Amino acid sequence: MSREKVNYLFSGGTVVVMDDSRRLIENGAVAVKDDKIVGVGPAAELQSRYEAAEVIDFTGKALMPGFINAHTHVPMTLLRGLADDLRLDVWLMGYMMPVEREFVNPEFVRLGTKIACAEMIKGGTTCFADMYYFENEIAQATAEAGMRGVLAQSIMKFPTPDAASYEDGLANCREFIQRWKGHPLIVPAVGPHAPYTCPPEILKACSALAQEFDVPLHIHIAETALEVENSRKENGMPVVPWVKRQNILDAKVIAAHCVHIDEGEMRTLQHAGAGIAHNPTSNLKLASGVAPVPLMLQVGVNVGIGTDGPASNNDLDMFEETRLAALLAKGFTGDPTALPAREALALATIGSARALHISDITGSLEEGKRADFIVVDLQPMHNTPRFSRDPEAIYSQLVYVAKSTDVQHVICNGEWLLRDRQLLKLDEQDLARQATEVAEKIDRFLVAREGNVVRKLLALGGLNQEESFEVQVKAQLEDLGRVEAVLKDSSLFKITKTSHYRQYDTYFAFGDQHVEQLRLREDIYLDEEGRPTPRSRFRLTLIGAASEREFPRSVILNRSRLTATPDQSLRFYREYLNPLEERELVKLRRRNRFSYKGTDFAINIDQMLTPAQPDYFLEIKSRTWSKRDAEKKAGLIAEILDLLGISDDQLIQEGYNVLVTR
Amino acid sequence: MSREKVNYLFSGGTVVVMDDSRRLIENGAVAVKDDKIVGVGPAAELQSRYEAAEVIDFTGKALMPGFINAHTHVPMTLLRGLADDLRLDVWLMGYMMPVEREFVNPEFVRLGTKIACAEMIKGGTTCFADMYYFENEIAQATAEAGMRGVLAQSIMKFPTPDAASYEDGLANCREFIQRWKGHPLIVPAVGPHAPYTCPPEILKACSALAQEFDVPLHIHIAETALEVENSRKENGMPVVPWVKRQNILDAKVIAAHCVHIDEGEMRTLQHAGAGIAHNPTSNLKLASGVAPVPLMLQVGVNVGIGTDGPASNNDLDMFEETRLAALLAKGFTGDPTALPAREALALATIGSARALHISDITGSLEEGKRADFIVVDLQPMHNTPRFSRDPEAIYSQLVYVAKSTDVQHVICNGEWLLRDRQLLKLDEQDLARQATEVAEKIDRFLVAREGNVVRKLLALGGLNQEESFEVQVKAQLEDLGRVEAVLKDSSLFKITKTSHYRQYDTYFAFGDQHVEQLRLREDIYLDEEGRPTPRSRFRLTLIGAASEREFPRSVILNRSRLTATPDQSLRFYREYLNPLEERELVKLRRRNRFSYKGTDFAINIDQMLTPAQPDYFLEIKSRTWSKRDAEKKAGLIAEILDLLGISDDQLIQEGYNVLVTR
Repeated sequence: MSREKVNYLFSGGTVVVMDDSRRLIENGAVAVKDDKIVGVGPAAELQSRYEAAEVIDFTGKALMPGFINAHTHVPMTLLRGLADDLRLDVWLMGYMMPVEREFVNPEFVRLGTKIACAEMIKGGTTCFADMYYFENEIAQATAEAGMRGVLAQSIMKFPTPDAASYEDGLANCREFIQRWKGHPLIVPAVGPHAPYTCPPEILKACSALAQEFDVPLHIHIAETALEVENSRKENGMPVVPWVKRQNILDAKVIAAHCVHIDEGEMRTLQHAGAGIAHNPTSNLKLASGVAPVPLMLQVGVNVGIGTDGPASNNDLDMFEETRLAALLAKGFTGDPTALPAREALALATIGSARALHISDITGSLEEGKRADFIVVDLQPMHNTPRFSRDPEAIYSQLVYVAKSTDVQHVICNGEWLLRDRQLLKLDEQDLARQATEVAEKIDRFLVAREGNVVRKLLALGGLNQEESFEVQVKAQLEDLGRVEAVLKDSSLFKITKTSHYRQYDTYFAFGDQHVEQLRLREDIYLDEEGRPTPRSRFRLTLIGAASEREFPRSVILNRSRLTATPDQSLRFYREYLNPLEERELVKLRRRNRFSYKGTDFAINIDQMLTPAQPDYFLEIKSRTWSKRDAEKKAGLIAEILDLLGISDDQLIQEGYNVLVTR
Repeated sequence: MSREKVNYLFSGGTVVVMDDSRRLIENGAVAVKDDKIVGVGPAAELQSRYEAAEVIDFTGKALMPGFINAHTHVPMTLLRGLADDLRLDVWLMGYMMPVEREFVNPEFVRLGTKIACAEMIKGGTTCFADMYYFENEIAQATAEAGMRGVLAQSIMKFPTPDAASYEDGLANCREFIQRWKGHPLIVPAVGPHAPYTCPPEILKACSALAQEFDVPLHIHIAETALEVENSRKENGMPVVPWVKRQNILDAKVIAAHCVHIDEGEMRTLQHAGAGIAHNPTSNLKLASGVAPVPLMLQVGVNVGIGTDGPASNNDLDMFEETRLAALLAKGFTGDPTALPAREALALATIGSARALHISDITGSLEEGKRADFIVVDLQPMHNTPRFSRDPEAIYSQLVYVAKSTDVQHVICNGEWLLRDRQLLKLDEQDLARQATEVAEKIDRFLVAREGNVVRKLLALGGLNQEESFEVQVKAQLEDLGRVEAVLKDSSLFKITKTSHYRQYDTYFAFGDQHVEQLRLREDIYLDEEGRPTPRSRFRLTLIGAASEREFPRSVILNRSRLTATPDQSLRFYREYLNPLEERELVKLRRRNRFSYKGTDFAINIDQMLTPAQPDYFLEIKSRTWSKRDAEKKAGLIAEILDLLGISDDQLIQEGYNVLVTR
């Protein structure tokens, strides 16, 4: 009787199957042919069934499914340890976003991914779910590293390093899916960043795209209590029902975090077949809280475990993450039997596979599934002794004691990625050298902006990012009367609101190429007769360097624009920020909000007091996060200028603040 | 100019000093002479000042104080992974205590300590605070391993593997202190286990002993909410004021856990100069909760970090423990800036040293302190890249990313313990081999009692350990009238309470040498006329095999005795526990509690109904946790027998249950 030929037979140790029965096989074996597991059972039985090109003895060790990291942003390995122990806004807007804007490009993303893959493989992870920019490069690097990935191209309303608008992001994502769909290692996915960065239009478009190609949709959900509070305030409901209304749950959802969802929301996710990625380290480190995992499991949602990005963890160690998940479940329920080791390990393997919608191909050691598994040494001193009375004690060893450095072999898709702790497809030294070069550049960039205004403002907190496309036109007015008469013609314009105020603008400049200027603006509202009222408004706006596109008779600016309600005096900001230059403008402004052909605009009619100017000025403005919408508005502005009788030579290109130094 | 001769100069990397100013020295150096640090500073400066017998280059690495594990039970390495994910009572009374009773002896303790030392040294720990049995053996093994230890001999009211009574425990402890006081590596300490296992008399004696020798006192404080609740119920106050009243805070206290203390209690501890050992993993794993560390630090208490015993963790990894402390502080306060990496690392080094009252000799890299430090490699893939903009980023690397396996060298008291990850004073292979032998014996023991009654009862929960010395005498009564008459003589006896009931005893036997029998007892109270009242009591008592000492005319039994209020029917227990034998006794009992010469006793006068016996029986009983008290009571019982006119030939030695099979 001839035996079936296979590539590898792993034989002799404990096989931790992670099927529904949580089968354990002492003196077990696993047979691998090409990319698949063809046999799982007692060693003696498999030895008689298969003729292996190579037999690998793993006596005294455990063979288990590779860990599946259910939520991360792998290129952020290159940002780990850059800035820690900070408030979320300071960390994100003061460090992550500025550095990402400056450094994230295809090369950065490829290198960061390879470093992440090296770390993950050495730590026993065979598959991960990512969401970042330039996901195509991440897919390329992941496939080269031999790892499995469910990779989502990020989409959001703000400009990102790889997309000037959400439409560009969506187009990138479609192209990305078309390129990778059907790849043996890569599952492409759609990555609408979060409900608070993606308005309904974007969420709906993302869901439609994911459904069109039957690929997963990866999104951050209810990470912080503030997010839920804002959702209730703005949408009248918590996050899960809100995204359901935007069709998100019609796609195969991977919902990262879900720290602040209630039982009803869990039921909604369960009903939709959505998966949850639990990220305990990141949620503690950023003080977001602890996700109610035992309740999620009781409700029956598919829960997996993830590390989140290495900039908020600060590593990609699934042993640590699984242990922390097991510990927190106990500490938070007050029940030491909550999420026992066996079930914690299940979450990090088959649980993650289910949450990522790929449990048909990976997550457990079952015949026909891809050969994605690891061998863990259970004999180091820190894991001594081993008790055999209760076979399930191996789960306790793997979860509470084993370390990522105990991983001896890693096989993914039937290929060796790590053998006797040696990486076979990646060159650690070379990656480390390249990483050092990137780190040095980032260091130089950050050192150069030390004392920088963004950083200092962020340290104060409370900054908000505004919509990013600004469509605007400015003109010098020779005939104010004519403009005012036209504006009163209600067959053309519908004025919705008019305000009149004296506006004091103080511009700080810092000689920093990354911040054009900071404007402190105080508006004193005036009554009908132009007398000051007790009403005033104080605002601080950080205006980034813009990328400009001129349109016929108007201009579209795309730039970072952060606003804050300042709670300090002008003097404080002056002393605290120490600007290189300071300019002041005072003007009387009449602001009209109006609707033209169903689109909202603002028109400002300004009289400059300091420095005094003989003419009036007119400004037409609108903001949006959609490039297409910006283009449409630019067209409407050209029509409005015609109606107002403003000619091209009246238009001025620069901001008012240049008047000061003219 | 000649340079001072030293043994070692470590030079070239970053020195993490952990002094009050949290000094960091890039391209730094540390000079070691004999057991002490003689120089800490820039490499160039120290190279010109010292001539070293050996220069060790640690470029690209961090040199920091060794971790100090502020609370553990090191020999429990031999019990790790034995039983996990269980309720505290099941874990403790179903597994830890029975196995400890059977296996803990000097050899066990020595081996367990050496395994712990091997693991701790490889993980960068140079010092630990222990509390266990046979502490003398632990001290011997620790000194041989070259580690520093603050080692407390356990004392409690129950018999322990090394002391039949608390008086023996106290005597052992005194001897232990006398033997080790002044040793270069070992600081002996007094270890009253906890306020709930040590009545006031023991606590006071322990405090006096610690003060007499000026050694630390190590105690578990407020580990669970239940402990605090019980303290309030029984003592009318929470735990800290209660132990203060027992003079505990007059000693140099190391208070382990303190999960459930309030701000006032923190102030009390701070005022007393007590240290707290924070054990985040164990507290989560056993579902005790999370200690309010940020508030403790705000109040100014000395807080250190410990792993607790490896049976409840399940390892001795101070990197994991420090990281978890840093993460939990954030997750629980909702403030991501709480306990930043730098301060978390400080807790695990100089903080622990202060909490253990040894910061004069270790915990930071300062001239004159003992040379206790480690070198950590910061260049593995999982810790790549490294940013140099903010020098303090090294704390984030050490706390959030570095692993115990990144420890390259360990020096303690000026001696090499680990060099290039090789243990120099311990033989890992040999220790692992011995550990396997012990594990196999424990496995056999537990397998043999599989299906055992203790285990099954424990699975139901609610068992209580009773006081352990039982002084008793039983007699067959020929003349009931005479006994009753004497008892009524109030010049001799002061009867405090009389009850009358019909008692139904069901004895289950299991053929298990570790449980003599289980008794289910139902008492139906009777009124004056001997008619049943609606009042009844149902109790379940697990009576362990006793070690017996006969005294003139009485007997002292020392045995484990667990009681529970059963909430199931007799039928349930019969079916659930499946006893090998079952016997039933029914008797009428008149129970008198009385005081004789100021000491309390119970006297039972029994009439056996089933199996019917012609005579009455008399039983005199008392329980205590003090051996000396038991001996005193045995003497008094002899006097009482004389007064009652009971002769030696009336005494019976066996329990009533033997009547059934007679």
